[in-house]
Amino acid sequence: MARKKSGGKALKIIPLGGLEQIGMNITAFEYGNSIVVVDCGLAFPEDDMLGIDLVIPDITYLLDNADKVEAFVITHGHEDHIGSLPYVLKQLNVPVYATRLTQALIEGKLKEHGILDLVDRRVVKAGDVVTLGAFKVEFIRTNHSIADACALAITSPVGTVVHTGDFKVDYTPVYGDPIDLQRFAELGRKGVLALMCDSTNAERPGFTNSEKTVGKTIDSLFSEHEDSRIIVSTFASNVDRVQQIIDAAYRHKRKVVVEGRSMVNVIQAATELGYVDVHENTLIDIEDIKNYPDRKIVIITTGSQGETMAALNRIATSTHKLLQIKPGDTVIFSSNPIPGNEKAVAKLINELSIKGADVVFQDAHVSGHACQEEIKLIYTLVKPRYAIPVHGEFKHLKAQAGIARELGIPSENIFILTTGQVLSINRNGARITEEVQTGAVFVDGLGVGDVGNVVIRDRQTLAEDGMLMVVLTLEKGSNRVLAGPDIVTRGFIYVKESDEIMEETREVALKAIDKIQDKNIGDWGRMKSIIKDAMSSYVWKKMKRRPMIMPIIMEAEIRKDV
Amino acid sequence: MARKKSGGKALKIIPLGGLEQIGMNITAFEYGNSIVVVDCGLAFPEDDMLGIDLVIPDITYLLDNADKVEAFVITHGHEDHIGSLPYVLKQLNVPVYATRLTQALIEGKLKEHGILDLVDRRVVKAGDVVTLGAFKVEFIRTNHSIADACALAITSPVGTVVHTGDFKVDYTPVYGDPIDLQRFAELGRKGVLALMCDSTNAERPGFTNSEKTVGKTIDSLFSEHEDSRIIVSTFASNVDRVQQIIDAAYRHKRKVVVEGRSMVNVIQAATELGYVDVHENTLIDIEDIKNYPDRKIVIITTGSQGETMAALNRIATSTHKLLQIKPGDTVIFSSNPIPGNEKAVAKLINELSIKGADVVFQDAHVSGHACQEEIKLIYTLVKPRYAIPVHGEFKHLKAQAGIARELGIPSENIFILTTGQVLSINRNGARITEEVQTGAVFVDGLGVGDVGNVVIRDRQTLAEDGMLMVVLTLEKGSNRVLAGPDIVTRGFIYVKESDEIMEETREVALKAIDKIQDKNIGDWGRMKSIIKDAMSSYVWKKMKRRPMIMPIIMEAEIRKDV
Repeated sequence: MARKKSGGKALKIIPLGGLEQIGMNITAFEYGNSIVVVDCGLAFPEDDMLGIDLVIPDITYLLDNADKVEAFVITHGHEDHIGSLPYVLKQLNVPVYATRLTQALIEGKLKEHGILDLVDRRVVKAGDVVTLGAFKVEFIRTNHSIADACALAITSPVGTVVHTGDFKVDYTPVYGDPIDLQRFAELGRKGVLALMCDSTNAERPGFTNSEKTVGKTIDSLFSEHEDSRIIVSTFASNVDRVQQIIDAAYRHKRKVVVEGRSMVNVIQAATELGYVDVHENTLIDIEDIKNYPDRKIVIITTGSQGETMAALNRIATSTHKLLQIKPGDTVIFSSNPIPGNEKAVAKLINELSIKGADVVFQDAHVSGHACQEEIKLIYTLVKPRYAIPVHGEFKHLKAQAGIARELGIPSENIFILTTGQVLSINRNGARITEEVQTGAVFVDGLGVGDVGNVVIRDRQTLAEDGMLMVVLTLEKGSNRVLAGPDIVTRGFIYVKESDEIMEETREVALKAIDKIQDKNIGDWGRMKSIIKDAMSSYVWKKMKRRPMIMPIIMEAEIRKDV
Repeated sequence: MARKKSGGKALKIIPLGGLEQIGMNITAFEYGNSIVVVDCGLAFPEDDMLGIDLVIPDITYLLDNADKVEAFVITHGHEDHIGSLPYVLKQLNVPVYATRLTQALIEGKLKEHGILDLVDRRVVKAGDVVTLGAFKVEFIRTNHSIADACALAITSPVGTVVHTGDFKVDYTPVYGDPIDLQRFAELGRKGVLALMCDSTNAERPGFTNSEKTVGKTIDSLFSEHEDSRIIVSTFASNVDRVQQIIDAAYRHKRKVVVEGRSMVNVIQAATELGYVDVHENTLIDIEDIKNYPDRKIVIITTGSQGETMAALNRIATSTHKLLQIKPGDTVIFSSNPIPGNEKAVAKLINELSIKGADVVFQDAHVSGHACQEEIKLIYTLVKPRYAIPVHGEFKHLKAQAGIARELGIPSENIFILTTGQVLSINRNGARITEEVQTGAVFVDGLGVGDVGNVVIRDRQTLAEDGMLMVVLTLEKGSNRVLAGPDIVTRGFIYVKESDEIMEETREVALKAIDKIQDKNIGDWGRMKSIIKDAMSSYVWKKMKRRPMIMPIIMEAEIRKDV
């Protein structure tokens, strides 16, 4: 075979999402007739994706190679790693491998979509190795802002690729053991082909603090505010954080209320599986708050990103059924604003302050991602031949590439890939050999993929200046105007106070119609474009606006015998 | 008079904007038959104000008291202090007092609106005192991120109010002298009734660094990147910043290109007035760049906030006519992202990095607003009886109130006002006596105030899920269907790939019409609501979406004799 001469069969690494952005992580590993897919996440819509609820990856490449796909292996249970599974499994039903908590969170999603029983779910634990076609995949314990996170060692005949998943190095984690650095070292000693390492914090020097440091901060904040009711807001999935808040509450003899749908769900799942250990008589129902003085209460809640519908915002804006802010409450944000949410968070803080709450926003959070010194540690243990920075925007990937270079990896062995590029590695070397179809599929309500760029562009136009319709009915055959033109607008101007403009608009339409009839134009496309041009030029001159202008022409056949 | 018994005639302080938000600063001071208005700024639209270009204050109160209004006195030339002037002066043409550079920037705006010659503009300088009815207003030199900024001492028969405007304490400013601390002290010694102090940075401990420190940073960045072309992006109005960049370029023997419309305008005005001093042969035209090697060029540009249409973004995305990023370029952000712009800025940095630029984003900026220690200094010099924190969101105002309390001002003498509240001060004390009409007026294109909440809500609905129209023509009298129902959608689904849904939608409409005709319903309002309900319930069940649903019914009269 010609291929053998050029270095043998290649391992192909094919990111189908997750580069260029934080979110929608999904990467295919292909060797011969086997494909293993790592993670299957969603992205949240960008500001200009109006009305879109979620964004999921285009998996055309996987569907075209469906017979090769062995399984999904999932690194951890965050939305950007599991969120697309229910959508993707409906099209490509293969087994899903994940650790216990991760699998529980996936099951929650599959249930919502009514496909739980249709999916082959395999629970693994750190240290397990599963054989998937030509691949062996080993799960390696790491630390992250959600329990049960794993890195993967993916071994093919070409060699081993280490994929860190999302990780940090926490020597004193709250639950379970520190990241299995020894295993990373062993793999490195044996020889690792490529390292795909989390880039999220690659721009930040130093080390990410241990999750345990947050526990100490929360404890001292509880001491400082011992007379007031305390509300702590954090990420629902950060089980260890919630554990520490519950522990602090217990030490300060306070009862705990958990509020917010996703928070309740995660805590319930985590408690059932033993990832959270709640002291007896600590949790109380929200209705029982009234039976305790304020200084005996801690409320743990979702909404730390200022999300409009989340519990904390409803509490702050007095739209929550059972809870509202009282002067003297202490609200602790155990979180940082995710980029893009800064303004929403500031708005929430203002609301809380206006209601009289004392808002604490510092030191009560640590990141779940490795900073520069941790990234250096992993590179030094794993000693990969190739570096493939993953999980980040370009600037993050570039920062990690800089670290890799600093550690002696030659520039030509560092690959900043873009989504869809196929990196082929064989014993001769690594290079980008082709590109496959990728993209973002919009989920809007129950619709998956039925809203594309045309629809989004229309929404943007409508959002900007609304619309202006000219409706008229013509007689079939004669094109005589039977009804109209009527002018209908929405989102354009306040019609009740704009008589003059509405009247002028109608006159412009009438003139355009006269012109059409004078010239005896019968083609509807041309009629519409004449009306449209006349209207838009009038509106732009008069108001410097560009609403969507829609001429709607109906045709009525008149039966004279009626 | 009953009033005298209760402490004499009162000074009324009436904020008509600028509290609850950063932006749209405008405050009326009223005594007897005199009103003086401090600043007249605009706000930029919030994310949910779709399609809105600017937000200006509702000045109903001033119009209702038009005969009392003596003048606008302007503290400095930033948009949030001058931007509404052209709109407001069209309704209320009174003299405008401002320092030279501020007046030049105002004139630029008045010219654009074609009202320059109609407005009585009075140039003042720091130290000037102008008499305006019952008031004497003194302009006091301060430092800020734009030259020629002033605080105001507003003296009425009740006493003196010091309004800081936007300020910082810069002992080593780039242009002109440090803030006139001695004058603040003198006023304080004589007795100051109230201090209205900038709260923007009241949450930040310490001192804001001198503008000169940025010059040093820029100089050393130029040394570090001596072989590459350098692009520096900053705020157009920060004349001192631009001066320092030009100085650094001169020292490093580089030519300077100024790019971006607002940057060119401001620099031109500032140069003419002598606020910027450009070394001979330093500025070159953008077309002449090609005559110099990259290491001899500095481009100063707008767009540091990631604004889509600004020069830097066009350069980054290769949509600029004359400039684009080349690998090896150094791009220095001499700015911080304004809250809300973080994501746009990150996107811009990614674009620049992808094109191969080295992006420097640190230490090349200082704030123009006072931090906690500077605020304490002003309070200590001015020793006001009352503290009225201004210029900030609630959390900023609250932070300054905390500082005032710490400095010994009793809580009952600290007023966190909300827009529209009237604070009346006489010799008996200060209290909120009433509320006046205030609000936000939306500017959209040439329209001022014709887009209100109803229109914005429609735009939000249209942006979210688009619209779905059912159009039909009925015969006048008989209500027989002459044409339709036609289904027309925009921003809802991609029609060409949604035959089934379009067909079902039409059937739902037909059934609704059948029902109307069976029941012989003749009222159009009822017809429309029956059609609308049927459609929206179908769409929600089928797709979990809520487009704007619009039944449009036309009526045609059939002349049988035709």
